Amino acid sequence: MDLLLRNVRPLGAGAVDVAVRDGRIAAIGPGLRCEAEVIEGEGALLLPGLVESHTHLDKTHWGLPWYVNEVGPRLEDRIANERRWRAGSGHDAGAQSLRLAREFLAQGTTRLRTHVDVDTEAGLKHLHGVLATREAMRGPMEIQVVAFPQSGLLARPGTFELLEESLRLGADVLGGLDPQAIDGDAAASLDLLFALALRHGKPLDIHLHEAGEEGARTLDAILDRTQALGMQGKVAISHCFCLGDVVAARRAALLVRMARLQVAVISTGTASRPVPPLKECVAAGVAVAAGNDGIRDAWTPYGRPDMLERAMLVGLRNNLRRDDEIALAFDAVTHAGARVCGFADYGLKAGCRADLVLVQAANVAEAVVARPARQLVIAAGQVVR
Amino acid sequence: MDLLLRNVRPLGAGAVDVAVRDGRIAAIGPGLRCEAEVIEGEGALLLPGLVESHTHLDKTHWGLPWYVNEVGPRLEDRIANERRWRAGSGHDAGAQSLRLAREFLAQGTTRLRTHVDVDTEAGLKHLHGVLATREAMRGPMEIQVVAFPQSGLLARPGTFELLEESLRLGADVLGGLDPQAIDGDAAASLDLLFALALRHGKPLDIHLHEAGEEGARTLDAILDRTQALGMQGKVAISHCFCLGDVVAARRAALLVRMARLQVAVISTGTASRPVPPLKECVAAGVAVAAGNDGIRDAWTPYGRPDMLERAMLVGLRNNLRRDDEIALAFDAVTHAGARVCGFADYGLKAGCRADLVLVQAANVAEAVVARPARQLVIAAGQVVR
Repeated sequence: MDLLLRNVRPLGAGAVDVAVRDGRIAAIGPGLRCEAEVIEGEGALLLPGLVESHTHLDKTHWGLPWYVNEVGPRLEDRIANERRWRAGSGHDAGAQSLRLAREFLAQGTTRLRTHVDVDTEAGLKHLHGVLATREAMRGPMEIQVVAFPQSGLLARPGTFELLEESLRLGADVLGGLDPQAIDGDAAASLDLLFALALRHGKPLDIHLHEAGEEGARTLDAILDRTQALGMQGKVAISHCFCLGDVVAARRAALLVRMARLQVAVISTGTASRPVPPLKECVAAGVAVAAGNDGIRDAWTPYGRPDMLERAMLVGLRNNLRRDDEIALAFDAVTHAGARVCGFADYGLKAGCRADLVLVQAANVAEAVVARPARQLVIAAGQVVR
Repeated sequence: MDLLLRNVRPLGAGAVDVAVRDGRIAAIGPGLRCEAEVIEGEGALLLPGLVESHTHLDKTHWGLPWYVNEVGPRLEDRIANERRWRAGSGHDAGAQSLRLAREFLAQGTTRLRTHVDVDTEAGLKHLHGVLATREAMRGPMEIQVVAFPQSGLLARPGTFELLEESLRLGADVLGGLDPQAIDGDAAASLDLLFALALRHGKPLDIHLHEAGEEGARTLDAILDRTQALGMQGKVAISHCFCLGDVVAARRAALLVRMARLQVAVISTGTASRPVPPLKECVAAGVAVAAGNDGIRDAWTPYGRPDMLERAMLVGLRNNLRRDDEIALAFDAVTHAGARVCGFADYGLKAGCRADLVLVQAANVAEAVVARPARQLVIAAGQVVR
């Protein structure tokens, strides 16, 4: 279906029309004419499809009865609690991931990277469920699946083989988790992980919760291997909390190396922990994408599949008050997210996939702080809301 | 108007009915009968009217065209920028405070404490505007006005007299601001402030942004005067960031003193700074209320007059994930807020003011994380939404 979206303001600029053909932006500019169906934008703000770079679709209780959270405070408590809950609850990762993916799409997210638990208890059950969701949503939504060793890699023998099988089955990205704090041996854990990624030609996305100098040493070990194995541009670090609490000179040095090796940060803007300082990362040339992390699951009751709200939380965490600062938070859920995850043909230019979102707001800064209802969502040229 | 609210679940407990007479809860319990108009609650979650303990109604641009923020990063930049903006913009603090107060009420907030700028440039203009709003909203909404020296007290001669005039005109609370960092002399500034509060029999609410040991020394000076002058239970510290970044033993000692002197904390759950740790404060017996601080003004573009969202932000900042932890964030925007500000007849008991909010949620934790639309708001016995 072809269409013409008339009188919209891309990112707050002057009003233009957008011609859509075969799922792509055919032209964008003032006064376009074509034979297509016309949708009148009435001067609304036009945003590109939003990008979620870090979530866990498979874990969510979205739409289910309230989950009463009585979990202990440590990372290990949360991991063990979730394994118990998963085993006992009959949780359907396929149905739940589909439910949440649809809600993301309704809120204007057209590209999404999700981690999926792979461990020796759940096996590949979650993976199969989320691969089915990826297929079901193909067309309007581009979903990347990360095979994620939630219970550790070295820590649980048999996990390596499951991760390899996940990549064979079609996982897009290889995930990692705290090579030192969870696996107890950063060098050995990372050697295995990088070897597996290389063998299958897949990018890496490593959860790094490790704090301070412990995390910085692991980050150095990741950067060493990225350089030695030629994985430049193929490695992202999720959370990377250590960048928020090492001393400034150490952080600056790490950022220089990360920029040179094109190692990106994916942040949730966690309010309760030190986080990678967004402005400093960007100034150093390190790309920062943003994500919700889990939404309504056994880990956290919080979250909403709305990337404008996530941008707001990133903005609050980084004290971004000026319009030009808030634009950085918006970039993390749009262009920077697409670059970091490698989503192709992204943006508001001719030739890009026609992923278009209309909201009532003066500009990008207002869209982030006000999080207005999505007035129109077009995904790959199709009106989905 | 009398009414009977049928089949509602107070704070998630079993369903009851609520009888309202003359603006108060006449009875609450199962199977009530009366001649009043009946509103069917259909098992919705019943919350008490929400409490905003720290905002700045007079500053807001709510409902006005987008304010492009290009302000410098320091506290002094923000204060000076706002003074320039106020002088040049013809800002109408009366109309704007009324607009935002109405939106707070529509979102279920029935009690609210607002700071109002009093300084030698604005004079009493903002105060007159907000006192008019307090009058206009009297009935459904109880508004407390804090006479707040936004530009400093000692720092700007003439401010003391304006504050005193504000109290004579009916301000409910005396405000203070960074006695050391802004006024440059904590002892002299606090001596003036406490003397003024005592002379007029008003409680104190002091903005304390001062960090670390500087803030802790000022806090000690506040506690010394609270004790010496018999102001126990009459002093609240807004922000009190220093409690978030002094060493643990120092914090513990300060909290013991604060609990003994009934000095409360009013926090916004600021994501970008250390904040008073909510659980530790409450465990020490220090009451913690919550507020938005400014909403859409020259200081910050963020904020929404929705105290459930504020509770969520407090929860995220304090990493409150368990249901019983989230209840603490909820308390900060309900019962604890009312206690700290001294709002009387508050709660879901017979005899209390009938401030009642219905939402679709299983329990308090879900109300905080999901922030559902307000289905019904009753303020002092009147349906206002």
